[in-house]
Amino acid sequence: MESDFIAWLRQRVPAQARLPLGLHDDAALVAARGPGDIVLTSDLLTDGVDFRLGDCPPAAVGRKAVAVNLSDLAAMAARPLALLVSLALPRAGAATLARAIYEGVLALAAEFDVPVAGGDTNTWEGGLVISVTAVGQTTARGPLRRAGARPGDWILVTGSFGGSLLGRHFTFTPRVREALQLHEHYDLHAGIDVSDGLSLDLSRLASESQCGAALRLAAIPIHPAARELARQQPTGPSPLAHALADGEDFELILAAAPHEAQRILSQQPLAIPITCIGRFVAQPGLWQEHPDGTLVELAPCGWQH
Amino acid sequence: MESDFIAWLRQRVPAQARLPLGLHDDAALVAARGPGDIVLTSDLLTDGVDFRLGDCPPAAVGRKAVAVNLSDLAAMAARPLALLVSLALPRAGAATLARAIYEGVLALAAEFDVPVAGGDTNTWEGGLVISVTAVGQTTARGPLRRAGARPGDWILVTGSFGGSLLGRHFTFTPRVREALQLHEHYDLHAGIDVSDGLSLDLSRLASESQCGAALRLAAIPIHPAARELARQQPTGPSPLAHALADGEDFELILAAAPHEAQRILSQQPLAIPITCIGRFVAQPGLWQEHPDGTLVELAPCGWQH
Repeated sequence: MESDFIAWLRQRVPAQARLPLGLHDDAALVAARGPGDIVLTSDLLTDGVDFRLGDCPPAAVGRKAVAVNLSDLAAMAARPLALLVSLALPRAGAATLARAIYEGVLALAAEFDVPVAGGDTNTWEGGLVISVTAVGQTTARGPLRRAGARPGDWILVTGSFGGSLLGRHFTFTPRVREALQLHEHYDLHAGIDVSDGLSLDLSRLASESQCGAALRLAAIPIHPAARELARQQPTGPSPLAHALADGEDFELILAAAPHEAQRILSQQPLAIPITCIGRFVAQPGLWQEHPDGTLVELAPCGWQH
Repeated sequence: MESDFIAWLRQRVPAQARLPLGLHDDAALVAARGPGDIVLTSDLLTDGVDFRLGDCPPAAVGRKAVAVNLSDLAAMAARPLALLVSLALPRAGAATLARAIYEGVLALAAEFDVPVAGGDTNTWEGGLVISVTAVGQTTARGPLRRAGARPGDWILVTGSFGGSLLGRHFTFTPRVREALQLHEHYDLHAGIDVSDGLSLDLSRLASESQCGAALRLAAIPIHPAARELARQQPTGPSPLAHALADGEDFELILAAAPHEAQRILSQQPLAIPITCIGRFVAQPGLWQEHPDGTLVELAPCGWQH
């Protein structure tokens, strides 16, 4: 089916200035955007683990496979250059499934003006696997890294957290534009996206920065879906616990010096709110900071791969 | 298992000048080699289609997944910059299998001095899927393309063809160095690697170049494995038929003007032989050229995806 599918894809993908040779060769040529370094990330999604094909439209799966990769580029404040999308498809109805997945892929690719530069489309006896690689490029400001937070820096986050399972884990907007805008106009020390859980990803950023993170729990912005999920499961986690541990929020955690963080918070330059939820501290680990300043250790929670 | 595996991988992968941040962030930073354009290719291999895990060592599968991608970079005369390797692993014995696969991945990566810049390692209820992306960069000579062969150009090939199934499809050397060397020192009009079959890939190159290809069948270099395969199956295809159709030779087909082709043939600058097997012609299609110059149509054979 691959030759038919490529013919369909060539028609479906508009001519792109950044893909000067189109989809005709053994590999795709992508024009770089000036002299920045190349940023690479891959995520592989499998049926039964990352999604259940019976429970969600294939286009949502395709969209998500692209969105998680764009979120990783956002975490490094890299501009998306190109996507590669590879599929292992169950044989029955493979062509129909491939096209449906691509509807989601191409819609998000168009929204972020990033070409699908290639990939590989196969059928087999197994279930659906989607592997996406996103290629980006750093701006003149260089990459945003996990290492770089310093004790005293404030912990800033975009948006709100928890309850993504109620639907947002398919529909979220990767914070590519937000990361680029903040990285260009402010002095950010470090960044990460929240894929596995706010507390877990924060602890990873702190660990790479060789410091600790102290959260003011009352300051954490809780998404309405986290409250809804807690309401649906009265004996389950609280809304705050959902916000700390659910993951797949795909918001940004950022580190900035206090004066810079204050400037960001007062200017609120994004369409989504930016909130300060604590500060980085010299003691390694994750902490809860009480109003009186005492630190109590907090266990990072989230999706451990 | 992924965090343990990443810890293992960080130890196993030597520090690389071209990966200045190592494997610590949401995406990998790869230093470009000067101003060339970026070249991207992905191949996804599945158990039961591209290999049978019971019949071959996992390291051979990992090596092959990298090698087919490097061969695509070779086809475009691009220098390898980085690899991304994503795995969907059956749950039972996943960590052991992942490490065994990586032994093959890392050995070939070291041989071509190309860093593994990332990927994604997952377990699931299904079979083994390996998705590799290779990132390269064009040299100052630009990319080698499929389109570019002109009527009158000679058809040159590296190495010999057929019978790859007897083992060469796992052990082949992607012609990266050969493509770069030829592209730097000679004026090549077009190129492709032979993954699906000599006659099929040649017809693809001719088609993208909007011309035809006329083969002198007696000139085609037949690999000893093609003769062995024909000997094993006396009622099956001839050695020549194997050479034309088997695929997975991962040799190069190149187009060059007659004077340049003669220069290449007389200088034989590679450690492997370069052979002229025919010429490109104005009439679209694939042809067999008889000694008296008459053309008889030939059906392209090979692996149709």
